[in-house]
Amino acid sequence: MVINGPNLNLLGTRKPEIYGQTTLAEIEQRLTALAKELSVELVCYQSNHEGELVTAIQKARGVYDYILLNAAAYTHTSVALRDAIEAAEVPTIEIHLSNIHARETFRHHSMIAPVCVGQIAGLGAKGYELALRYAVETV
Amino acid sequence: MVINGPNLNLLGTRKPEIYGQTTLAEIEQRLTALAKELSVELVCYQSNHEGELVTAIQKARGVYDYILLNAAAYTHTSVALRDAIEAAEVPTIEIHLSNIHARETFRHHSMIAPVCVGQIAGLGAKGYELALRYAVETV
Amino acid sequence: MVINGPNLNLLGTRKPEIYGQTTLAEIEQRLTALAKELSVELVCYQSNHEGELVTAIQKARGVYDYILLNAAAYTHTSVALRDAIEAAEVPTIEIHLSNIHARETFRHHSMIAPVCVGQIAGLGAKGYELALRYAVETV
Amino acid sequence: MVINGPNLNLLGTRKPEIYGQTTLAEIEQRLTALAKELSVELVCYQSNHEGELVTAIQKARGVYDYILLNAAAYTHTSVALRDAIEAAEVPTIEIHLSNIHARETFRHHSMIAPVCVGQIAGLGAKGYELALRYAVETV
Amino acid sequence: MVINGPNLNLLGTRKPEIYGQTTLAEIEQRLTALAKELSVELVCYQSNHEGELVTAIQKARGVYDYILLNAAAYTHTSVALRDAIEAAEVPTIEIHLSNIHARETFRHHSMIAPVCVGQIAGLGAKGYELALRYAVETV
Amino acid sequence: MVINGPNLNLLGTRKPEIYGQTTLAEIEQRLTALAKELSVELVCYQSNHEGELVTAIQKARGVYDYILLNAAAYTHTSVALRDAIEAAEVPTIEIHLSNIHARETFRHHSMIAPVCVGQIAGLGAKGYELALRYAVETV
Amino acid sequence: MVINGPNLNLLGTRKPEIYGQTTLAEIEQRLTALAKELSVELVCYQSNHEGELVTAIQKARGVYDYILLNAAAYTHTSVALRDAIEAAEVPTIEIHLSNIHARETFRHHSMIAPVCVGQIAGLGAKGYELALRYAVETV
Amino acid sequence: MVINGPNLNLLGTRKPEIYGQTTLAEIEQRLTALAKELSVELVCYQSNHEGELVTAIQKARGVYDYILLNAAAYTHTSVALRDAIEAAEVPTIEIHLSNIHARETFRHHSMIAPVCVGQIAGLGAKGYELALRYAVETV
Amino acid sequence: MVINGPNLNLLGTRKPEIYGQTTLAEIEQRLTALAKELSVELVCYQSNHEGELVTAIQKARGVYDYILLNAAAYTHTSVALRDAIEAAEVPTIEIHLSNIHARETFRHHSMIAPVCVGQIAGLGAKGYELALRYAVETV
Amino acid sequence: MVINGPNLNLLGTRKPEIYGQTTLAEIEQRLTALAKELSVELVCYQSNHEGELVTAIQKARGVYDYILLNAAAYTHTSVALRDAIEAAEVPTIEIHLSNIHARETFRHHSMIAPVCVGQIAGLGAKGYELALRYAVETV
Amino acid sequence: MVINGPNLNLLGTRKPEIYGQTTLAEIEQRLTALAKELSVELVCYQSNHEGELVTAIQKARGVYDYILLNAAAYTHTSVALRDAIEAAEVPTIEIHLSNIHARETFRHHSMIAPVCVGQIAGLGAKGYELALRYAVETV
Amino acid sequence: MVINGPNLNLLGTRKPEIYGQTTLAEIEQRLTALAKELSVELVCYQSNHEGELVTAIQKARGVYDYILLNAAAYTHTSVALRDAIEAAEVPTIEIHLSNIHARETFRHHSMIAPVCVGQIAGLGAKGYELALRYAVETV
Repeated sequence: MVINGPNLNLLGTRKPEIYGQTTLAEIEQRLTALAKELSVELVCYQSNHEGELVTAIQKARGVYDYILLNAAAYTHTSVALRDAIEAAEVPTIEIHLSNIHARETFRHHSMIAPVCVGQIAGLGAKGYELALRYAVETV
Repeated sequence: MVINGPNLNLLGTRKPEIYGQTTLAEIEQRLTALAKELSVELVCYQSNHEGELVTAIQKARGVYDYILLNAAAYTHTSVALRDAIEAAEVPTIEIHLSNIHARETFRHHSMIAPVCVGQIAGLGAKGYELALRYAVETV
Repeated sequence: MVINGPNLNLLGTRKPEIYGQTTLAEIEQRLTALAKELSVELVCYQSNHEGELVTAIQKARGVYDYILLNAAAYTHTSVALRDAIEAAEVPTIEIHLSNIHARETFRHHSMIAPVCVGQIAGLGAKGYELALRYAVETV
Repeated sequence: MVINGPNLNLLGTRKPEIYGQTTLAEIEQRLTALAKELSVELVCYQSNHEGELVTAIQKARGVYDYILLNAAAYTHTSVALRDAIEAAEVPTIEIHLSNIHARETFRHHSMIAPVCVGQIAGLGAKGYELALRYAVETV
Repeated sequence: MVINGPNLNLLGTRKPEIYGQTTLAEIEQRLTALAKELSVELVCYQSNHEGELVTAIQKARGVYDYILLNAAAYTHTSVALRDAIEAAEVPTIEIHLSNIHARETFRHHSMIAPVCVGQIAGLGAKGYELALRYAVETV
Repeated sequence: MVINGPNLNLLGTRKPEIYGQTTLAEIEQRLTALAKELSVELVCYQSNHEGELVTAIQKARGVYDYILLNAAAYTHTSVALRDAIEAAEVPTIEIHLSNIHARETFRHHSMIAPVCVGQIAGLGAKGYELALRYAVETV
Repeated sequence: MVINGPNLNLLGTRKPEIYGQTTLAEIEQRLTALAKELSVELVCYQSNHEGELVTAIQKARGVYDYILLNAAAYTHTSVALRDAIEAAEVPTIEIHLSNIHARETFRHHSMIAPVCVGQIAGLGAKGYELALRYAVETV
Repeated sequence: MVINGPNLNLLGTRKPEIYGQTTLAEIEQRLTALAKELSVELVCYQSNHEGELVTAIQKARGVYDYILLNAAAYTHTSVALRDAIEAAEVPTIEIHLSNIHARETFRHHSMIAPVCVGQIAGLGAKGYELALRYAVETV
Repeated sequence: MVINGPNLNLLGTRKPEIYGQTTLAEIEQRLTALAKELSVELVCYQSNHEGELVTAIQKARGVYDYILLNAAAYTHTSVALRDAIEAAEVPTIEIHLSNIHARETFRHHSMIAPVCVGQIAGLGAKGYELALRYAVETV
Repeated sequence: MVINGPNLNLLGTRKPEIYGQTTLAEIEQRLTALAKELSVELVCYQSNHEGELVTAIQKARGVYDYILLNAAAYTHTSVALRDAIEAAEVPTIEIHLSNIHARETFRHHSMIAPVCVGQIAGLGAKGYELALRYAVETV
Repeated sequence: MVINGPNLNLLGTRKPEIYGQTTLAEIEQRLTALAKELSVELVCYQSNHEGELVTAIQKARGVYDYILLNAAAYTHTSVALRDAIEAAEVPTIEIHLSNIHARETFRHHSMIAPVCVGQIAGLGAKGYELALRYAVETV
Repeated sequence: MVINGPNLNLLGTRKPEIYGQTTLAEIEQRLTALAKELSVELVCYQSNHEGELVTAIQKARGVYDYILLNAAAYTHTSVALRDAIEAAEVPTIEIHLSNIHARETFRHHSMIAPVCVGQIAGLGAKGYELALRYAVETV
């Protein structure tokens, strides 16, 4: 399952020098194609609401083998997402398009990292594909 | 009125060694039974959305005598809930299933405590019942 | 476009000694009247949900010339609103009814200020009118 | 066993707007009555000395089933009390008459919380009674 | 009364991309014109000396109805100005040409904000005019 | 009433370059003489125990008009003494032989200052005499 | 020599509940009278300018035996005054009318304390007289 | 070019529950195989010396298209490596076997992240392979 | 002289995995035996009271050649013990059974270390014997 | 232009072990002589007033090629001097007689350094001469 | 195995008032003699290079029963040494000649303490001998 | 003796807009020429290894009259270099090509400054020449 957080629906238009010119739809298409190639099922979800993201993660419990999560802005402050990931007990990979460790200080800290398997940051839209490969190989 | 915050709908399954094995439905049943015993009315509400919790608290204004609030993850960061409690002018008791002061540092601080009557933490599901008793005796 | 955040729907009843006795409806009426006087169109929106505020700001992109934003409690913590403002590329003026710099320490910091044009704080409901005048004169 | 710390012998006279008008003797009488009602034995102790409180807690080891502890001022600084509670291995409930999380910053932190079962704060003299009920039900 | 602090005498030449190209004289002329239009008297004062600014504020006591104060660099460190404003008991509006909350961290904090009515920041020279309108309407 | 805290019984021998060569007995004699001269009664007390100091302050309630308190090492950490002073409701003057603000950082902060009338520091044994004069003149 | 800092010229009018109702002139008169009584000479000086206070202290070098200094707002930030006191090599007593340790946090720290003999705070106008007595007795 | 820092020569033996059981030699073999498959050249280097790592990075300048760098312990403190990466002007991907953001606080901060393209953490030995794929696709 | 602080009277029962299974009596016996072997006199003292420990240290002045001090919980907060050690002018060795630098952060800091000769931590009951050997060899 | 800040008029008498025995007049003479030797004009200015130093720097705009500035105590706190240097657009070299980085912590930070060309500290009066040489060679 | 870090090769000449007058060679001789007396083998190593110390510790794995480590300056910053000790799985005793807890703040923290058995500080060259005795007795 | 730290061997190529276009060889040639002109001997050394720099400084003891040290990245973290300088007892001048106080925060602090004579920063390659002049004049 691929979950994207707030403002990622604007990908391709928002600050292309940081986030690239690919839209979220294109990323999801490529991922779906790659999933097919690797013979796995893939569901994509995006929301600007912290509460909806919490619910989406809760619902993955016992249903999906992996969550690829780009929590965007909520990465840095959301205790609720952290608790949801821990409660869902689905291994989760944290993804960031930009290198959050090279930006403003408040983006260096990830509230969800301690309950995730790992983190890929700064590798743009390809980050999702790498995470998918990893997930498929380690299920 | 009893208000529960994010991920508490998973009670009984999420980290039972910390949060116990009782589900939220069971807690609400027991509370309703106790309320009947104490001859008071009780309404229960749960949401994963900070905004919905804010609205629920606002609506308690002038309607309920007490709010029993387990804001869960939002306890530690939500200025909006704090403002809502202050605006609602309904005495509010803060409840936590686990002893938040004995867990990660970011769970020690409660953003809503300064506008609540008091706090019960670490006494599990019984914490709600104690708070209800207190509310009934002090209305 | 005028966007108001959490608990501002309670204006006039919540802590009138801090926020004044004018209701949000009255503020919006006055602003609409002033907008007519200044020959500009004005749309008003309020929500208690961080996610809905994010979406509202996103939708302003390419549609409105200015956003007058009182993000209330979310001012101090919301990275999502900050990212939305930056992504929307609509000049935004930050408004606060009370003088946030004279209140609790956690209200001194604005997470959204660095991506706004400027800030008006402590001038009550008139703050919106001043911001509207500024917006009209600088479009 | 009920243990009260420094200055609690002045209850009823000290800052009644914060600590209420009930004296410590009255609280202890009510608790003793409640204990009788619940068919348990109860011993009360108060001291202004950190060292005597440490010794009192040590002596509870293997003798009492529960300690109800209002460490008052020592709550915030005493490593010795923390070590004593840990060493005594008697489950301990931390009680505060006032809502310490709503007062001066130095009262927000409890040095003993991490070794206690839970905490009741801000519910006045009733806090002891609620704790006693909890203790009796969970022994 | 309009009081401007250190280096504001250089307006128009100093960092025009931040402070704009209008000189202080031009700002004062426009304000005087606006004051006439609004039928109020206006006196302007500028100094690079913290002590002279303190004295100017002291002298406003019982003489002027409002102070519009851009304390510039002294905003961030001057306890003396804060004490003077408090002692003068003339309502004071804090003005900043640039959005101080979007600049270096040491410019985010205002030592004088807690004793001012409110703050306008980032709206350039127009900030003074808006403050003047506010002052006139609320005297 | 004159109350002296831990290690002040060693005065005259302990670090004479900081605390002077006068012994505590000599200080108390001089104070008693001065008290006689000013026609007031004076009682002196010293203890190394935080708990005994708390009790001594509690007992001053309703008995003495002033407490002259040199809490020595407990000045910097004792919440219990602070609570006792507040509860005793006897105006208290804080005295330090050495200039605590010129020594190690941990001696700069006084936990009891906010509940005392004032502080005299660095004026050696004469500090007590000045405080006594002040007390006598302002009773 | 008695040196008073910024805003002390307003004594008697500024916040009388904190600073008392005595004017600076009255304080200086009483001090002059007391000086006569103690057979010493006394010169008084007040300025709102940090630079003038620095110069005044420099000029005391080799001329006066003691400086009684109430640096007011500059107490908390002025490195220049600290350097001047150190350079003047005249023993200096720091005086504050109010108990600065009981007020806002930024008033707790004194930048000049480490180079002064001692500090008297919170004893109002009498603080100067006590300091004068101390100075006369220890010259 | 693949560069590994201090203690990575012990891989497979050191804390296998954190770092896995694969040895560094095995990782390098797999990477070399993958490189061949992707038709690129690959050189591997490991050192326990900060200075040697600096020199290795310097030498990559103008020679290699990408550096895959696991700086291990030096990640968190080495300004010298950061300067070397910046000076070498070879795009560098930061790799960590474990999820450093889920371990001790001092491992959360990466001194080199701001000068790297991105970071892969917590994906074990596969992290190198994903980084290699990314490098090959984006050269 | 050997001085042990709060809760050390529980040695052997309290958290044996951290503090070992030897009781305080056994440690004191072994030390006495070793003292005899090394031909020196040894006196042992334990108290849970900070004030009594202060007094014990004061009394060592001019009587004992060395103090072996395990201040336990008071190590981290007691200014009074620090002052007592300094005042007693008896060289003091600080001993900790556990490696305090490997435990909770608040146990890393020793308030008394700066006035002690040195520190032995983490070497269990043998730490006292090593300290005794050192003391005997360096008297 | 050479500008010296507060208390530097006392050079030669103030703490000669730190600042040397050369007076400011002697330093200025030597500099003037060196300026002549290097065929450049030199003007010297000293003031104890922050405001006068601001004005002096402002006046250098378009008149002098370089400012050699020893802001002394104001170095560490003056935002006004920083703004003045930035506004003046005259390259400025920061000079300190003593090695400020080896003294009290509050002297380590320079508020003006980020807008200066560079800094010479700890080389005594010769620091000015070296700065002058640098200025002359790089005009 | 005895490992000494940077600058310890200068022992006897460097700051003898802190580190004593014994040279490293003499310490090693005494230790070797003591080892012989206690019938154990001893190897000594010193290096100024962090990397070489890391390698030395790695090589102790499975070869030596104990490491006596004085990491000197690297104690306070080296994550690499910490990781090496953890990886080597040889019990390590941390030794410091001086009492690091009584010196500059940056020397109070030991990065390696959490992975060592214990620490001996401030007992000079004898610290090694005591550690050796401990090691021999507990192998 | 001139000692240069990590990455300075890349001078002229690394970030020329910060460090200038002169290579290290050219700087050393100019310095050697200037040394000849001033009739002193000069030896130059560069290393990327902290340990080698430590050794180089140690060897200067009793051999050279002055060390000109640009420790580059190690300036900010190396306790080992600090200890070496102190141990070598050769007066050392700290040099930085760029104005470290105007760059990232972590470059503002110099760990070695407190043991150096002084610091020259931001004056490029000329900084070495000025330091050499100073050294020659003050030997």
